[in-house]
Amino acid sequence: MATLGLIEYQNASAEVRAVYDDIMATRKTDWINNFWKALANDPPTLRRTWHSIKEIMAPGELDALTKEMIYLAVSTTNQCGYCIASHTVAARKAGMTNRMLAELMAVVGMANETNRLVTGYQVEIDERFKV
Amino acid sequence: MATLGLIEYQNASAEVRAVYDDIMATRKTDWINNFWKALANDPPTLRRTWHSIKEIMAPGELDALTKEMIYLAVSTTNQCGYCIASHTVAARKAGMTNRMLAELMAVVGMANETNRLVTGYQVEIDERFKV
Amino acid sequence: MATLGLIEYQNASAEVRAVYDDIMATRKTDWINNFWKALANDPPTLRRTWHSIKEIMAPGELDALTKEMIYLAVSTTNQCGYCIASHTVAARKAGMTNRMLAELMAVVGMANETNRLVTGYQVEIDERFKV
Amino acid sequence: MATLGLIEYQNASAEVRAVYDDIMATRKTDWINNFWKALANDPPTLRRTWHSIKEIMAPGELDALTKEMIYLAVSTTNQCGYCIASHTVAARKAGMTNRMLAELMAVVGMANETNRLVTGYQVEIDERFKV
Amino acid sequence: MATLGLIEYQNASAEVRAVYDDIMATRKTDWINNFWKALANDPPTLRRTWHSIKEIMAPGELDALTKEMIYLAVSTTNQCGYCIASHTVAARKAGMTNRMLAELMAVVGMANETNRLVTGYQVEIDERFKV
Amino acid sequence: MATLGLIEYQNASAEVRAVYDDIMATRKTDWINNFWKALANDPPTLRRTWHSIKEIMAPGELDALTKEMIYLAVSTTNQCGYCIASHTVAARKAGMTNRMLAELMAVVGMANETNRLVTGYQVEIDERFKV
Repeated sequence: MATLGLIEYQNASAEVRAVYDDIMATRKTDWINNFWKALANDPPTLRRTWHSIKEIMAPGELDALTKEMIYLAVSTTNQCGYCIASHTVAARKAGMTNRMLAELMAVVGMANETNRLVTGYQVEIDERFKV
Repeated sequence: MATLGLIEYQNASAEVRAVYDDIMATRKTDWINNFWKALANDPPTLRRTWHSIKEIMAPGELDALTKEMIYLAVSTTNQCGYCIASHTVAARKAGMTNRMLAELMAVVGMANETNRLVTGYQVEIDERFKV
Repeated sequence: MATLGLIEYQNASAEVRAVYDDIMATRKTDWINNFWKALANDPPTLRRTWHSIKEIMAPGELDALTKEMIYLAVSTTNQCGYCIASHTVAARKAGMTNRMLAELMAVVGMANETNRLVTGYQVEIDERFKV
Repeated sequence: MATLGLIEYQNASAEVRAVYDDIMATRKTDWINNFWKALANDPPTLRRTWHSIKEIMAPGELDALTKEMIYLAVSTTNQCGYCIASHTVAARKAGMTNRMLAELMAVVGMANETNRLVTGYQVEIDERFKV
Repeated sequence: MATLGLIEYQNASAEVRAVYDDIMATRKTDWINNFWKALANDPPTLRRTWHSIKEIMAPGELDALTKEMIYLAVSTTNQCGYCIASHTVAARKAGMTNRMLAELMAVVGMANETNRLVTGYQVEIDERFKV
Repeated sequence: MATLGLIEYQNASAEVRAVYDDIMATRKTDWINNFWKALANDPPTLRRTWHSIKEIMAPGELDALTKEMIYLAVSTTNQCGYCIASHTVAARKAGMTNRMLAELMAVVGMANETNRLVTGYQVEIDERFKV
């Protein structure tokens, strides 16, 4: 189910369990998805990745829903099947409606199209856009 | 400045001018950026692309700012220099603050990281995430 | 001008000159572009890459123009500035008109858009499409 | 089978049916593939995407076969499984032989290789290639 | 199992068998994986691809393990499922431990993240880094 | 020089200076490159990114040179100009010779080619490769 297997809670070290507990508490859920169980084979990566995600995805100037939709937009652009599946669920939990999903995908599709049109036509950056 | 050159307003056909006029009216601006001037070499693509963008980027369930930030997230993931430059300006005009930009980029970076971790570890999609 | 510098003909070894001569003869031109001068720092890669390209790009069931346009489509999707610049010139030399370039880019843009729409919507492959 | 489900003809609105009818008439087929049934959850995207594809993929200076092969080249570069499956079938229908497929893939592979060699070696664009 | 089917040894031409024999001898194995059986539908691509890989992956200044890990890093970045699966096995055979795999994936994830942060922030290349 | 400008040491807050000091001490250098000066506009991202990189890039089962070459392989695949420039310098500092660079790029190019060949031919994963 994953290259190095999946570490279930009952088989996890105290260090890994502490991360799992924090994931469940932060997300108000009672299960751990496969991504974390795979990363648990490498506790430093598990810990670092979770702490980064926890900090980055916490509501700030952008709310949780907006952040989840941005995550989904990137995952769709990268054609990451697991990430699209998991972050579609996460975004819905954060309030994404079917209509919002449709609008999100329309923007993602369009941006991927125009990214290539502008580069393919070798368009130089306008002076007004330069930093 | 672009493979087929840039079509300035004064040299444009009536068909192209009509699109330019609509772009300026819709965006409440008095100039046309190079992307459109390059596409104007192919009026059907100019017309179709503009009409699609106009429809897609209009506020709906997602507001204009959220849409612009999603556009910027995709463009950053694709490493499209022109698109990052132009949509950073567009997103700011729609209300993106420096703090929002920083949070947006943090999410984009993180998603690009975890997209690879999950695929590299060959993690199978959890049953609960399947459609 | 390149990480390891550019190897000019007059400074090249006999092995490298032989490849340069074959490139110029095959392409009916009297100059070598920077890509080859950079690869010449690693003669085995220079030789292998040139022989592969020479074999792959030779007219077969697909003519030279079609092959050049496919090369340009890939380079545009990958946002490779050098490749877009050089293969636009190569495709034009092989007969690509402005109108063909515009149609090519329209297809490239559209494919990049629908690639994300279909993945983002998590669409399952139709039975009829399976190999 | 897709995030928002698939809209079958019998359950579709008149607006969606009109698009389905046009797809079948244009493609001279009697069925609709999953991509369109997924997009039908968002009628404006269904309509816009279909009209764009219909316009872009119609024979022009480039014939239908060339356009389908370019579509397949982009989809392969983006690693889009659904798109590769569906456009391989579409390209075959437009006349792509096994030999053409093999040549197409050889060019796609080569372009993906040299795109990275040229960028990895940090090769500067030749003056003669600049627009 | 592949677009053009898989060519098994017993059904292969002498030309294809010669490549299969060389693959098995070089890799000290008694079977051929699907990738080669698919390419065998196009003998020139089979031959060229194998000869290139054989030359490139042979130990040089970089040892076989390092080369396999680089291959895996690229395949992970491109989200190529087949390549990740096959090169994870190949890298393990060349000596990659679980711990090395974990460190490799951590670097791959981080590089994918910072690639987007630096481009998203539109950071100009430092003079000291220019070639 | 960057969307939000570059924060020089003399204008930096104590929090940012502490990170700059740690970067210079860890890397045994007396200057800060633009990437960090851009991230310094968002101290939490600066701090988190630096701590992650410091932890990930420290020698472990993989030595510093191998890690830098993997970083460069990913950056090349993603066509990130800044990252290629900076990590080429970093890899050289860690001991990468011209010959190693050439071998690295040959592997990166080949992997990018075969990633597309295998996906384009729709090759199914061999049972022996499945996790």
